[in-house]
Amino acid sequence: MVSDKRETPKYYQISQDIIRMIRTGRLKPGMQIPSENEIIRKYRVSNTTARRSLHEIEAAGWAARIKGRGTFVRENNVTRSATRILGFTRNMIEAGYEPSTKVLDARRINHRYAATINGRRYSMPAPVFKIHRLRFGRDIPMMIEVRYISLEFCPGIEQQDFTGSLYDIYEKKYGLPLVEVNQMLSTVMIDAATQRFFDVSEPIPAFRVNGVTFCGKEMILEMEESIYRGDKYRFAVCAK
Amino acid sequence: MVSDKRETPKYYQISQDIIRMIRTGRLKPGMQIPSENEIIRKYRVSNTTARRSLHEIEAAGWAARIKGRGTFVRENNVTRSATRILGFTRNMIEAGYEPSTKVLDARRINHRYAATINGRRYSMPAPVFKIHRLRFGRDIPMMIEVRYISLEFCPGIEQQDFTGSLYDIYEKKYGLPLVEVNQMLSTVMIDAATQRFFDVSEPIPAFRVNGVTFCGKEMILEMEESIYRGDKYRFAVCAK
Repeated sequence: MVSDKRETPKYYQISQDIIRMIRTGRLKPGMQIPSENEIIRKYRVSNTTARRSLHEIEAAGWAARIKGRGTFVRENNVTRSATRILGFTRNMIEAGYEPSTKVLDARRINHRYAATINGRRYSMPAPVFKIHRLRFGRDIPMMIEVRYISLEFCPGIEQQDFTGSLYDIYEKKYGLPLVEVNQMLSTVMIDAATQRFFDVSEPIPAFRVNGVTFCGKEMILEMEESIYRGDKYRFAVCAK
Repeated sequence: MVSDKRETPKYYQISQDIIRMIRTGRLKPGMQIPSENEIIRKYRVSNTTARRSLHEIEAAGWAARIKGRGTFVRENNVTRSATRILGFTRNMIEAGYEPSTKVLDARRINHRYAATINGRRYSMPAPVFKIHRLRFGRDIPMMIEVRYISLEFCPGIEQQDFTGSLYDIYEKKYGLPLVEVNQMLSTVMIDAATQRFFDVSEPIPAFRVNGVTFCGKEMILEMEESIYRGDKYRFAVCAK
C-alpha cells in the first residue's frame, strides 16, 4: 500500500496542515499564518512549494494576503439573510463555501407534526416525511436540521436524493412555489449529541430556528427545527 | 418609621412573594403555583385574601388559571419582530410588559464610531452621543444597549430625558423619519459584567445585535450594540 503522503504533492500537504490549524481554532480569525520563509524552514521545502501552499490556502478561502504585511486567517462566519427565502445550499455557495450533506435519517411518520412559531400554532396532517440532516460548508459541520415535509404536496418524495437542496426538489420536481417562510430564532447551548455532530470539544451557544414554509396561502409545505452554530453564523435582518 | 409590612395589604405581600419565586426561577414556566388552599395554610389568611393574591399574580401576567386544574406560570418570553422598525418600548407594551429604563452612562464622544454590519462597514463622523442603558420589562432586566447617536441630526440631544423611547425623541422632537434598520444577530455567552446587570447567577446565551438606523438614504441616525437575554427573547423573522 502506498501512503497518502507519497501520493499528495508536498505543497498540498502543507496547505492542509495549516488549514487544519485554522479549522481547529489554533489559528484564529485575524491571526497571521506562517509566512513563506517560515514554511521553507519548518517543512524544508523550496520557496516555490511554500508559495504554492500559501496560494492554496488563500484560494480555498481560509486566509487573505495583505500586501506587505502577510497572510491572515479570514473571519469564518457565514451571514444568513433572514428576510430572503434562502436555502442552506444557495447560502453556502454565495458565501464561497462548498456545501455537502449527510443524511442522518429519513422516514415517513404516521402522526401529525405541530409547533408554535412566533405565537401561532401550525400543524401538518399525517403522514409527514421527516428528514434529519447534518449540513456542511467546506467540510465543516455548519448546521443540523430536522425537516417535516408534507406528503400531500410532495407525494413520493421518499424516492428523491436528499444530499442536495430540498428547495430545489420542491421547485423543480414538484413545481411548488415557495411563497413565505416564517421563522422563530432563539438561542440555546448545544446539547451533547449536537456537540458530537459539530465536532466541538465543549458546549457552544447556537441559534435554534423553528420555521414553517408555505407553498400557497395557508398551505404548509414543510416545517423545520434547526440548530445553526453560533460561532459560524450571523443572521442579517432588515426592517423598513 | 412604619415598616412596609404594615403598609402593604396582606394579599399584595403574598402575590409579590410568589412573583419573586417566578422571577428567580424557583417556579418555572408551566409549573403550578400555590393553590388557594395552599396559600390559606401557608400564610394563615382567609380564602378572600388567598383568592385576591392569585388574581393579582394573574393580572400582572405572571400566571394563567386553567379551569379545574390550577394556576400555572406563563411562558415569559417576548417575541421581537426583526422585520418591523420596532423600539424596545413599543415591543414591551405590545407584549404586556411595563417598560422601564436605567441610564448607565450618557456622554458626548469626540471620535467617530464605526462597525461592520452584515459585511458592510458603517461609520458615523464625530462627535457622537453615546448612551448606555439597561432596559426592563415588568422590572426584569431584558436587554442592555449602547447606542451611538448622530449629533449632526440630533443637535442638543444631551438635554433630553433618556428613560423612555429614543425612537420617540427622533420622531417627535427632531421630526426625523426612521426609514430603515439593518441588524446583524449573533449569539454570545454573556460576560461577567452583563451577568451582574441581568441579575443571573450564571452565564447564559444571548443575542448580540449590531445595528444601524437610517433617517434617509445613506443618512445614519444611530448605531447600536445590544445584548438581548436569550432566556427572555425570541426573534421573529419572515421572508416572502
